[in-house]
Amino acid sequence: METVNLSVDEAYALAYHALSSNGFSEQHAAVIAKNVTAGERDGCASHGLWRLLGIVNTLRKGKVSADALPTVVSQAPAIVKADAHGAYSLLAFEQALPLLIEKTRQCGIAALAINRCVHFSALFADVEPLTDAGLVALATTPSHAWVAPAGGTQPLFGTNPIAFGWPRGDKHPFIFDMATSAAARGEIQLHHRAGKAIPEGWGIDSDGNATTDPQAVLDGAMLTFGGHKGSALAAMVELLAGPLIGDMTSAESLAWDNGAGGLPYGGELILSLDPTRFLGEDASAHLARAETLFSGMQAQGARLPGERRYQSRLKSEKQGVAITQSLYDDIRALSA
Amino acid sequence: METVNLSVDEAYALAYHALSSNGFSEQHAAVIAKNVTAGERDGCASHGLWRLLGIVNTLRKGKVSADALPTVVSQAPAIVKADAHGAYSLLAFEQALPLLIEKTRQCGIAALAINRCVHFSALFADVEPLTDAGLVALATTPSHAWVAPAGGTQPLFGTNPIAFGWPRGDKHPFIFDMATSAAARGEIQLHHRAGKAIPEGWGIDSDGNATTDPQAVLDGAMLTFGGHKGSALAAMVELLAGPLIGDMTSAESLAWDNGAGGLPYGGELILSLDPTRFLGEDASAHLARAETLFSGMQAQGARLPGERRYQSRLKSEKQGVAITQSLYDDIRALSA
Repeated sequence: METVNLSVDEAYALAYHALSSNGFSEQHAAVIAKNVTAGERDGCASHGLWRLLGIVNTLRKGKVSADALPTVVSQAPAIVKADAHGAYSLLAFEQALPLLIEKTRQCGIAALAINRCVHFSALFADVEPLTDAGLVALATTPSHAWVAPAGGTQPLFGTNPIAFGWPRGDKHPFIFDMATSAAARGEIQLHHRAGKAIPEGWGIDSDGNATTDPQAVLDGAMLTFGGHKGSALAAMVELLAGPLIGDMTSAESLAWDNGAGGLPYGGELILSLDPTRFLGEDASAHLARAETLFSGMQAQGARLPGERRYQSRLKSEKQGVAITQSLYDDIRALSA
Repeated sequence: METVNLSVDEAYALAYHALSSNGFSEQHAAVIAKNVTAGERDGCASHGLWRLLGIVNTLRKGKVSADALPTVVSQAPAIVKADAHGAYSLLAFEQALPLLIEKTRQCGIAALAINRCVHFSALFADVEPLTDAGLVALATTPSHAWVAPAGGTQPLFGTNPIAFGWPRGDKHPFIFDMATSAAARGEIQLHHRAGKAIPEGWGIDSDGNATTDPQAVLDGAMLTFGGHKGSALAAMVELLAGPLIGDMTSAESLAWDNGAGGLPYGGELILSLDPTRFLGEDASAHLARAETLFSGMQAQGARLPGERRYQSRLKSEKQGVAITQSLYDDIRALSA
């Protein structure tokens, strides 16, 4: 397959241009371009430059604001609320982050609820700034109703990712970011784009039968990972980042989209916890004990989540990223 | 199989007598007896009366305090710490609960860290009092190193349950309580007790090979549910309810046990969130939207977690609980 090689800076410039030429404000174009470039750089194609197509398409459908400025308020001693006013989530996150960190250090634990945001981005990016600040973080968001609950056959839950991060001082943080669906929807779409069958267990067709045809699953329902346990977690995500923060469930988001094919609209919940408030002066000794857990995993061949991402990052920073010619052309065409 | 039928009150009296005759203080015997009776009543045999054998055995091995009184402190505006001083977790939980609720209502979100507790109980029981107070709750605890990480073959994680609860006003709360291992260890022990094979996927033998022999898995390693995703969640539990709160990982707990065969020793973390602080006067409208999610699950035949438990509870309250004659005899023998 023909590919185009771009330095990380070139990838950012490509993304920024596609966004600003479609009308995104400078601030929104910058945080969105940074996010999709980071995904591509980190080897996560499903949250990389390819996302620009859906990001711009959602704007053209009138399903996202190109320039709304977020409103950040202190809702309670340990709760920050950020209203994205119908724009993508990233600028609201960036502007609410300092207050979330301040409240976490003050109270020991705090929550950030982002409301009325359109969401396309990997939660990894919302966890890493908190681990960089020495905090433990947990982030989650619903999406569109694409996933059937265990025991059912109809789409009700979103892919409902959960990301968790643990700070490791000078080392890369321990971060996982996983859909509670068996696979990310982007993975199924990439299989469809490549004309490849998907593994069994990822989804069912609209009659509720198992299938490996990506289009049949996109038209039917995805499945949760891990059976009824993954399904329970997916329901938890709906509740925490939906009604708890006064925002839409995945079913409500899809109904709001009303067939336009836009990205999910709703809320995101981020929790952060400060080890120094839990532990006082013993914090560093206890954080060192976490390192023993990680080395116990690695000693038996178990990979730490995020490891591959940081390897990709290092490689991309040296060698750039390679995307297919067809994706490159599609992104360029966004500005035409 | 010969069974003995007991009313819920008789079951409690049986449990209380077994505990107090072995030296547990009145306060500890009461909360422990209440907990195992509730498990039995709710149809959770693996956290029911059967647990009394391990509870008393751990005391006889010198691995738990029979009478230590917990110390509860306000660690930070949104953090409560409860030191169990080597006793079972339940009394510390009960005594810390009012301050946790108060901090949650004050700050919007709060955490309770229980330290230096021996743990045997289902987390369901630590979530339900919070949903009864109208709060959302999340609880987790490590155990002993019995479970291999995905990609490894050696026990490192505990069964590391995660419980989540959502208040539903006059209805039973939405609560799930699930091990991040493929099965609860108690289930494997009950299979062993009954001389039955376990399903594939629950564990591996000490050489790392798949097996359906419960004893081989008890001697080898259990597996997480859902492959690498369940494994990531199990690691998260180790970190949150271990180093973050200054307490042992599952590997440290097993090392501390030093072959005595006692129950896990370490910490438990409970988070609680107040919907009224997140939502203000709109809380009831948004909580009503959660009900739409639940009815969307039920309409397609998906069961709500906890439903079966509340059905068992109702039945047990009318008809009592049935335990095997052999278990009844074993419990009676504890007092001999």
